[in-house]
Amino acid sequence: MPEAAFAPATRAIVGDSEFDRDTALTRRAPGVYDIDLSAGWTIINAVNGGYLLAVLGRALADALPHPDPFTVSAHYLTASQPGPAVVRTETVRAGRTLSTGQASLFQYDDEGNEVERIRVLASYGDLDALPEDVRTSAKPPALPPMDQCFGPEDGPAPVDGSSAITDRLMLKLDPATLGWALGQPSGKGEMRAWFGLADGRDADPLSLLLAVDALPPTAFELGLKGWVPTVELTVHVRCRPAPGPLRVSITTRNLAGGFLEEDAEVWDSTDRLVAQSRQLARVRLG
Amino acid sequence: MPEAAFAPATRAIVGDSEFDRDTALTRRAPGVYDIDLSAGWTIINAVNGGYLLAVLGRALADALPHPDPFTVSAHYLTASQPGPAVVRTETVRAGRTLSTGQASLFQYDDEGNEVERIRVLASYGDLDALPEDVRTSAKPPALPPMDQCFGPEDGPAPVDGSSAITDRLMLKLDPATLGWALGQPSGKGEMRAWFGLADGRDADPLSLLLAVDALPPTAFELGLKGWVPTVELTVHVRCRPAPGPLRVSITTRNLAGGFLEEDAEVWDSTDRLVAQSRQLARVRLG
Repeated sequence: MPEAAFAPATRAIVGDSEFDRDTALTRRAPGVYDIDLSAGWTIINAVNGGYLLAVLGRALADALPHPDPFTVSAHYLTASQPGPAVVRTETVRAGRTLSTGQASLFQYDDEGNEVERIRVLASYGDLDALPEDVRTSAKPPALPPMDQCFGPEDGPAPVDGSSAITDRLMLKLDPATLGWALGQPSGKGEMRAWFGLADGRDADPLSLLLAVDALPPTAFELGLKGWVPTVELTVHVRCRPAPGPLRVSITTRNLAGGFLEEDAEVWDSTDRLVAQSRQLARVRLG
Repeated sequence: MPEAAFAPATRAIVGDSEFDRDTALTRRAPGVYDIDLSAGWTIINAVNGGYLLAVLGRALADALPHPDPFTVSAHYLTASQPGPAVVRTETVRAGRTLSTGQASLFQYDDEGNEVERIRVLASYGDLDALPEDVRTSAKPPALPPMDQCFGPEDGPAPVDGSSAITDRLMLKLDPATLGWALGQPSGKGEMRAWFGLADGRDADPLSLLLAVDALPPTAFELGLKGWVPTVELTVHVRCRPAPGPLRVSITTRNLAGGFLEEDAEVWDSTDRLVAQSRQLARVRLG
């Protein structure tokens, strides 16, 4: 694997990276956290949904007795903006091997009233306590080597208003799913990419919450343009990811009635399927 | 389609069927509902998770301004039992085309204290208001005709402690996914069946919430035995189902660390993909 192709000169470590600093929360009271949402994770002027999921996931990791997100279900209510936000968590149930929590992210309207942006339900556990058993029939996505894939830096900005988040990601897209960027979408609901953080920080369960919602939408390869806002996204973290770049594959099988689902799989450098997600998103039919 | 093969002599209609009677709620206060969970929907002595989802879905359909579940995310906390329960709902956001709600189902401990069984977040809309556009690449599951498929009534009870729910369902399993019942599981994480309600009531969005969690678990074909409790289940209802039997396909691609995902697709008699779901479940590795 040509890892050197993307390795920055100085590699950020987990706990001291852009992603860690921009998801850091200040505890205001038990289960209540303040954060300044970073403008560094915006795409087409909205804060990326995966970054927001990581913020909520980090709050719950602090609030719940178990450390790792096993399954997080998020319903997106209103579009988040960079700036101050508060996360309020609730412990729903604390069990022996799993605990369940709820969290909401709020921002403020012009009168200073809280406006809810996202609400999540999540079950947490301890990934390191799981048995080693693996009986997976899924196969990693077929991706060309990283140096044969293309990122935003390799061509003209393919997305109108494309924005800050691309500077924070190492994203190398499979040319087979890049037809949209050349005005020739394949018509297939597929997108595949090598994925990492631009400063070289390795993946962990929290950054997997970002990874599942960080690729260009499959809608682009289906010939649609514009924003594809997420209504709901559920992610399952199945394994702690090994160091090294991730491979992310997203697919859409059903575009109908102005909605589509996007299924993501995230594979680590040891060929373990580390996360699966599905979202329901709205499309503007062109 | 040999529909006559399962049509009961008198066909129950939507609104007046076992399913409708057993999911009927009594409004105690705005957004708060009482119900007596029916013993008729138990499997291995636990109340079926899909039936519970339909109960919660019906409460939210009453409480929210929009009629149809578009996406429902449920986290299962403790096992429900037949008997009294209360459902408490909250309107999280009421938008123009979508509204989002939360609901919890509680039962009572020996001291009469409420114990939370399930919590859901859900976004509702109006299926009849969606555009007709369908650009689906998914294909319906390949199933033999119904009279070449097999139900619980066709052989010895294949599940230990198999129970009441089988009397309320029309379930005809593809023989290709029935190896487990003969002691020869295929090793593939697949289960396919014709699905309906035993009294002939046609499907509607609420009964789709039941359909996605009503087949024997894929775990059986993977050679595992025993209960596979759901941790989280999210369902997307994509279209109002046409009259006639449904086809349900469930698949598992990743069994690892004592957990598996189960993806369900539900197809109606006009070959429309009417619902998709994914659940994370725990397995006892044998």
